[in-house]
Amino acid sequence: MSDLKSYLKEQIALVDAALDDYLPEAALAPSLVHEAMRYSVFAGGKRLRPILTLAAAEACGGRLEAAMPGACAVEVMHTYSLVHDDLPCMDDDDLRRGRPTSHKVYGEGMAVLIGDALLTEAFAMIASISENDTFTVKDYLKQFAKTGGSCELIGGQVLDLEGEGKTLSHQELIKIHEAKTAALLVCSLRLGGMSAAASDDQLQALTDFGYHLGLAFQVIDDILDVTQSTEVLGKTAGKDEATDKATYPSILGLEESKQEAARLTQQALEALKPLGKKAHRLEQIAHYLLKREM
Amino acid sequence: MSDLKSYLKEQIALVDAALDDYLPEAALAPSLVHEAMRYSVFAGGKRLRPILTLAAAEACGGRLEAAMPGACAVEVMHTYSLVHDDLPCMDDDDLRRGRPTSHKVYGEGMAVLIGDALLTEAFAMIASISENDTFTVKDYLKQFAKTGGSCELIGGQVLDLEGEGKTLSHQELIKIHEAKTAALLVCSLRLGGMSAAASDDQLQALTDFGYHLGLAFQVIDDILDVTQSTEVLGKTAGKDEATDKATYPSILGLEESKQEAARLTQQALEALKPLGKKAHRLEQIAHYLLKREM
Repeated sequence: MSDLKSYLKEQIALVDAALDDYLPEAALAPSLVHEAMRYSVFAGGKRLRPILTLAAAEACGGRLEAAMPGACAVEVMHTYSLVHDDLPCMDDDDLRRGRPTSHKVYGEGMAVLIGDALLTEAFAMIASISENDTFTVKDYLKQFAKTGGSCELIGGQVLDLEGEGKTLSHQELIKIHEAKTAALLVCSLRLGGMSAAASDDQLQALTDFGYHLGLAFQVIDDILDVTQSTEVLGKTAGKDEATDKATYPSILGLEESKQEAARLTQQALEALKPLGKKAHRLEQIAHYLLKREM
Repeated sequence: MSDLKSYLKEQIALVDAALDDYLPEAALAPSLVHEAMRYSVFAGGKRLRPILTLAAAEACGGRLEAAMPGACAVEVMHTYSLVHDDLPCMDDDDLRRGRPTSHKVYGEGMAVLIGDALLTEAFAMIASISENDTFTVKDYLKQFAKTGGSCELIGGQVLDLEGEGKTLSHQELIKIHEAKTAALLVCSLRLGGMSAAASDDQLQALTDFGYHLGLAFQVIDDILDVTQSTEVLGKTAGKDEATDKATYPSILGLEESKQEAARLTQQALEALKPLGKKAHRLEQIAHYLLKREM
């Protein structure tokens, strides 16, 4: 695992350098919004999604440089969704990645605009993904807009808002997590694969991997919300229970939730098999996420 | 002008039919967001931006069908910006196009998500603009993301928020209007031209036309806010003065503002000359907007 840790560290540094490159400079007018965009993006996230994009490109024999704009785009889309989800009119969170949330620092109106600007910038990055004989910017754009849209990423948040205070079934909870979490992980992987001119079979393997990994990731997130402290998480712990939110532990119990996370991770690993040895990093990442503590 | 009126009516019907086609159906799950997206889009707007896209395509010898997805994209981007601008944490408006604003009907959290979903859907539409030997989806995407981004559309709203309660100079006001209004009009025209494989000279003419038309449009908007009733406007009249907002009438006075609108319209018309007779509809639209009463 120490090999994985230094790999992750290196990838984070590469992604951060690319984000610094692609995002408008903080001094550009109007500087308030550009400084605020960087405040949200450079808050020390795990960079899981862009790392998946790069590892997926590698798993399909592609170049890291070809995939990098897509890697940045998924991270920036993820960041926009956090900025808007944290708003008082949504999940109302004061803390994110250990720092005050955007609306606490810049005010609510600005936080809406910061999210809007990040989403728009994410689409701008899509235009820079390398084209190949199989995939063009048109394909990347369709994939990205579908994932970010009203049936996946935003749809999941809508279901989440609608489900507040209600008792949800296991199936309903899976539906929310498919849309809110798994969809963007699938997109991260597919954009990486597409930038490497992946075959249909390769893309299908990445999709199955991302789907199960995404659900596992969310089960673990729910578990950590119960078992970890605010200090360790960098966001308010115990919030799901305090707000009466349906989660895996609340529906299945803690022990069964842990088993579910392990099962889903196993299914994710199974899905990788057609990709062979080149999927080594994706495999390591899945193992690592199952054991994460923040 | 009666010829123009029937032309505008026909174009609105075409745009509305295309929007109906491109937007997710209201019944699609989660239906709340899809119904809400349609509530905002089908609120009886003037459809100025998409009509400019179609007329620009015509002025460059292109086909209406090739330009239509771009026409819908600019209208949907415009609608998203209204939904977010009307939020309590932004301009706090209860009325838009004669109906309660999105957050009044669906709540604030949902209104944020509705705007996000519309913006994402607008980008999805960009992927459907016909490609030609000169321009591909990559070019359309770059244009659209630049216009919607933190230096133009969103940047203008940031300047607007920052300027609240301050005394602005004529130059500062122009800067806000360039970003908030003129940029999207320019983009509407350019996407139409690009879908028609316009030459650099033709695109430059459309850009100059859109810039001056956009500024004229905003001057007239400011004038109407002073001179018209809420009933006629379909949005709260007299709001600029009530909120102490810098406007053309407040800086230049009403009479000088009217002359400024006429001057800007004249400059817009001058810019059209290189396009010749095919720009006939754009010319008519500029005359019409100068005399509009709502």
